[in-house]
Amino acid sequence: MRTIDINCDMGESFGAYRLGEDEAVMPFTTSANIAGGFHAGDPAVMQATVRLAVKHGVSIGAHPGYPDLQGFGRREMRLAPKEVEALVLYQVSALAGFARAEGAEVSHVKPHGALYNQAARDAALAGAIARAARRFSREVILVGLAGSRLIEAGLEAGLGVAREAFPDRAYESDGSLRRRDLPGAVIDDPMEAAANGLRLAREGVSISRDGSTERIPVDTLCVHGDTPGAASRAAQLRRALEDNGFSLRPPELTLPGE
Amino acid sequence: MRTIDINCDMGESFGAYRLGEDEAVMPFTTSANIAGGFHAGDPAVMQATVRLAVKHGVSIGAHPGYPDLQGFGRREMRLAPKEVEALVLYQVSALAGFARAEGAEVSHVKPHGALYNQAARDAALAGAIARAARRFSREVILVGLAGSRLIEAGLEAGLGVAREAFPDRAYESDGSLRRRDLPGAVIDDPMEAAANGLRLAREGVSISRDGSTERIPVDTLCVHGDTPGAASRAAQLRRALEDNGFSLRPPELTLPGE
Amino acid sequence: MRTIDINCDMGESFGAYRLGEDEAVMPFTTSANIAGGFHAGDPAVMQATVRLAVKHGVSIGAHPGYPDLQGFGRREMRLAPKEVEALVLYQVSALAGFARAEGAEVSHVKPHGALYNQAARDAALAGAIARAARRFSREVILVGLAGSRLIEAGLEAGLGVAREAFPDRAYESDGSLRRRDLPGAVIDDPMEAAANGLRLAREGVSISRDGSTERIPVDTLCVHGDTPGAASRAAQLRRALEDNGFSLRPPELTLPGE
Amino acid sequence: MRTIDINCDMGESFGAYRLGEDEAVMPFTTSANIAGGFHAGDPAVMQATVRLAVKHGVSIGAHPGYPDLQGFGRREMRLAPKEVEALVLYQVSALAGFARAEGAEVSHVKPHGALYNQAARDAALAGAIARAARRFSREVILVGLAGSRLIEAGLEAGLGVAREAFPDRAYESDGSLRRRDLPGAVIDDPMEAAANGLRLAREGVSISRDGSTERIPVDTLCVHGDTPGAASRAAQLRRALEDNGFSLRPPELTLPGE
Repeated sequence: MRTIDINCDMGESFGAYRLGEDEAVMPFTTSANIAGGFHAGDPAVMQATVRLAVKHGVSIGAHPGYPDLQGFGRREMRLAPKEVEALVLYQVSALAGFARAEGAEVSHVKPHGALYNQAARDAALAGAIARAARRFSREVILVGLAGSRLIEAGLEAGLGVAREAFPDRAYESDGSLRRRDLPGAVIDDPMEAAANGLRLAREGVSISRDGSTERIPVDTLCVHGDTPGAASRAAQLRRALEDNGFSLRPPELTLPGE
Repeated sequence: MRTIDINCDMGESFGAYRLGEDEAVMPFTTSANIAGGFHAGDPAVMQATVRLAVKHGVSIGAHPGYPDLQGFGRREMRLAPKEVEALVLYQVSALAGFARAEGAEVSHVKPHGALYNQAARDAALAGAIARAARRFSREVILVGLAGSRLIEAGLEAGLGVAREAFPDRAYESDGSLRRRDLPGAVIDDPMEAAANGLRLAREGVSISRDGSTERIPVDTLCVHGDTPGAASRAAQLRRALEDNGFSLRPPELTLPGE
Repeated sequence: MRTIDINCDMGESFGAYRLGEDEAVMPFTTSANIAGGFHAGDPAVMQATVRLAVKHGVSIGAHPGYPDLQGFGRREMRLAPKEVEALVLYQVSALAGFARAEGAEVSHVKPHGALYNQAARDAALAGAIARAARRFSREVILVGLAGSRLIEAGLEAGLGVAREAFPDRAYESDGSLRRRDLPGAVIDDPMEAAANGLRLAREGVSISRDGSTERIPVDTLCVHGDTPGAASRAAQLRRALEDNGFSLRPPELTLPGE
Repeated sequence: MRTIDINCDMGESFGAYRLGEDEAVMPFTTSANIAGGFHAGDPAVMQATVRLAVKHGVSIGAHPGYPDLQGFGRREMRLAPKEVEALVLYQVSALAGFARAEGAEVSHVKPHGALYNQAARDAALAGAIARAARRFSREVILVGLAGSRLIEAGLEAGLGVAREAFPDRAYESDGSLRRRDLPGAVIDDPMEAAANGLRLAREGVSISRDGSTERIPVDTLCVHGDTPGAASRAAQLRRALEDNGFSLRPPELTLPGE
C-alpha cells in the first residue's frame, strides 16, 4: 500500500486578523505548516494552532517566511544567505517551543511564499534554508517543490526531504508552477483538482529539461486553507486518494532511495 | 567562599543599528541576557551574540520583551496574561534554537524593561512569565528583582530563581528601583557603583514594608552595556567582588533555601 | 431640522488581511475614520478607502492609533505625550496626502482604540492629540467621547469638536463606556441599537458626577463595520434618524455654542 | 556663477537607536533627505530632524524607503508599482505634516537604498515613484541618479528633477555606481572625495552606452552622514566647491533645459 501526505499552511492569522479555515481543514490533513510570526502568525496564534494540530494528531511543521507581514511573505526579497539561515532557524525554534510544551515536536520545515519559490531555483538560498533546518535538528524533514534546488539542498545537507506537488496548480514543462497571473494557473474545480492530486500521487511530476523528460515522485500534496470551500476541497482530495488505495500519513524520516 | 553572578543585557542591536558594547563587556560577565527580537535584536544579532557568549564561557539567558521596537520595550503595555505567556515562550524558544545549534542551552530567563518592571508588582503578569519559562524547561532559572512578585511567581511555578540587584541604581525603601526621571536615580561614578555592588552582594537589598525591614539576599548583579565606559565599569565591579572574596559564577539551579 | 453625523472606522484591512465591510457600510455613513497604518491599514488600503469615501461623498477623517498592529491598537500603552503628538501628526498627515491626491481634505481626527479610551480620561494625553490635530490644521474637527477630556482638550486648543456616542454600547453613570468584558456592555439587537442611537441623538448622553447629572449633546454616532450584519445595522440606524426628522451630515466646523 | 547642492540622508535614527551625525553634518548641506519611518526614522525623529533642518535653513526632502527596517531598506524587494506608489505618497505626506507644522515645505523627494537603486534601472518602478511625487505636489523636485530611469520618469511626469552624483563612490562606465562589495567602490580619503566631487560638479558624470559617451550634468552631490568623520568630509567638499566658484544652493524648481 502506498502512502501519501496532505499538507496545509496553517496559523496564518495575526492579532485581530483571521485568515484560513484551520479548524475545518485540519481533520483532512496529515501535516500542518505553521507560520512563524514573520510573514504571518503571532505567538498566540502559533500556540493555538499547535494545540489544534496535536488534538487532530496532525504532524507539526514550521513554515518560516520573509519578514514581510504587509506582503504576506509573497514579495520577493534579496537577503544574504546568512540572514536567511538565521531567520529560518529563529522561526523554526520558536515554533518548536510551542510544540514541545504540548509534548510534540517539529517534524518538518517548509518555507513560505517567495522564500519557497526563490529557493526552488536559487541554490545559495536553498542551501541556507537547509543549513538552518539541519542545525535545528538532524531529524527534521525539509519540504520543497518536487525537482527543485531546495530538495537538492536538503539531500546535500543530509536531511530527509519531502517532494511536494500542488493538485490545484498548473505546471510548466520544467516542473515549476505556472505563475498565478497567467491563465489556467489555478484549478478551481474541486473534482478536477482531486483528480489531478491523485494523478500526481500515482505518477509524480513530469519535468522536461535539456530534451529529456523525468518523472519525480511526490511525497506530499499541498491543499490551501484560505480558498472558499477549503475544507470540502481537502476532504474530496483525501477521499480520492483513500478510495484509490493510498494510506494518508506524514512523510517518513528516510532519505528517498533508502 | 560566596558566589555571585554578573549579568548584562546583550544582543540589543537591530539590523544596521548598533547598541551596546557586547564584545567589550562580555568578558567581565558570567551571564548574558540576549534580546529576543521583539524589543530589540534580530535573528542575525541573536546568533552572533550566542556565539560570543559561548566563546567567553558566559551563561546564556533569554531576555524577552514587549513587541515594541520603537520604544525599546521600555513603554508600559497592558497585555492579557495569555498573550504575555505566548510571547515569552516564543522568544525564549527562538533563542534556544541558536544556543542549541552552538551546543549550549538557555540557562535563565529575564524579562526586559517595562515587562520586567510591571511583573515586579503585578502577580498575574509575573505568573504568565513564570508559566512560559516553566513550559520551556523545568531547568531554567527565572531572574527577577529581589523581593518582587516575579521571584514569588517563579518559586510558585517550581522554578529556580535568581534575585537581582542593580549596583548603579538607587532604591526606594520598598525595594523598588527609583524611577529614572527622579534625581539621584542613577549612580554615575564607577567606583561608587562598584562599592554599591559589593555592598548589595554582601548584605542584600533592604526592603521596608508594613513597618518592618527585611534583607533580601542577592544572587546576581546587573551591569549595563550601553552606557559610556560600560566595559571598564563592569571590570571595576568584578574586581571589587573578587578582591573581597567572591567567586564569580552564574546562578546555580537550586531553589534558594535548599 | 436637527443634523447628526454617522461615523464608522474604515480602512482597517492590512496587506492580505481583510477586516470590515467598508464597501457595504460606507453608503450609510457621513464620516469615515480611516486607519493610519499603525494599529491597522497600510498605504494601499488607505488609498483605496479614501477613494471609496470620495465616491460616496463621505467626509474623510484620520483614525490614528498606537504602533501596535498585533494588538489592533486596543492594548493600553504608556507613551510620553511628545511621542503621541508626533505619531498622531504623522498618521493624520499621511492620510491627508491620499485625500489631497483625490481632491479632498481630512476633515476630522478621531483617535483609535486604547488611544481614544486613555485620552478620554487622561488630560496630558488628550492635550497631545489636540496639539497634533491643531498643528495639522486649524480647520480640523477633533472627535472624542462626549463629556471626555479629549473634547475639553480640543476646545482648549481652539479646535472644533464633535461629541461622539455609541448606539450599540452601554454607558456607566459617569459617561464612560461600559467595559466590553462586563455583561450587557454591547447591544446586539439592531433594532434596540437603532432606538438607542435615536435617543442619544435627541437627548444626548447623561453623565452623573459629584451628585449632579448633566446631559451632553451628541454630534456624531459611531457604527461598527466589523460586526456581522454591519451594513444593515447602519442602514437601520440611519433610517430611524431620518424618519424622526434628523438630517444626516458630517459635523460642521463651528465650536459648540457659537 | 554656477550653483550646486549638497544633500545628505538624515533622520535615520529609530527609537533608542542612534544613527548618523545629523547635528554635525547639517550645517554643511543645502538639502536634507529625511527618512519616512519605513526603512528608518520614526515620528519623533522626523519631527526633530525637520526642526534641525529649518534651524539651519536647509531644504527639506522626503526620503521614502521600503518597509524593511531590519534591512535598513537596502535589501531588494519586488513590489507591485501600485504598492510603491502608495508607500511613497504615504511617507512623503507624513513628512510634509512635520514640515508644514514648522512653516516649511517638502521641496524634494529622493528614494532610499534599494528603492533608489532599483528605480535607477526599472522604468515601471521609476514611474510609480514619479507618479507618487507628482500626486503629492507638482512643485516637488525628484532626485535620482544622473542618467537613470528615475530622472527620465520624473521628466515624463512633468516634475522638476535633480541629477545626483556621489563624490565618494566609483562609477561603472554605464553611469551606475560600482557595487559596494567590489574593490575600489568607496573612496575613503576625504581629500580625494572632495576632489572627485568638484570634478563631478564641473564636468558631470560620464556615461558610455552603445559605443558613444555622454556627459550628464550634476545638480546635487550626496554626502554620507553615517561614516566616521562625516562632518569634516562634508565641510571639505563644501570648501572645495566654494573655493572654486560654486554657490551652494538647493536645486531650483525648473526643468533642466528651461
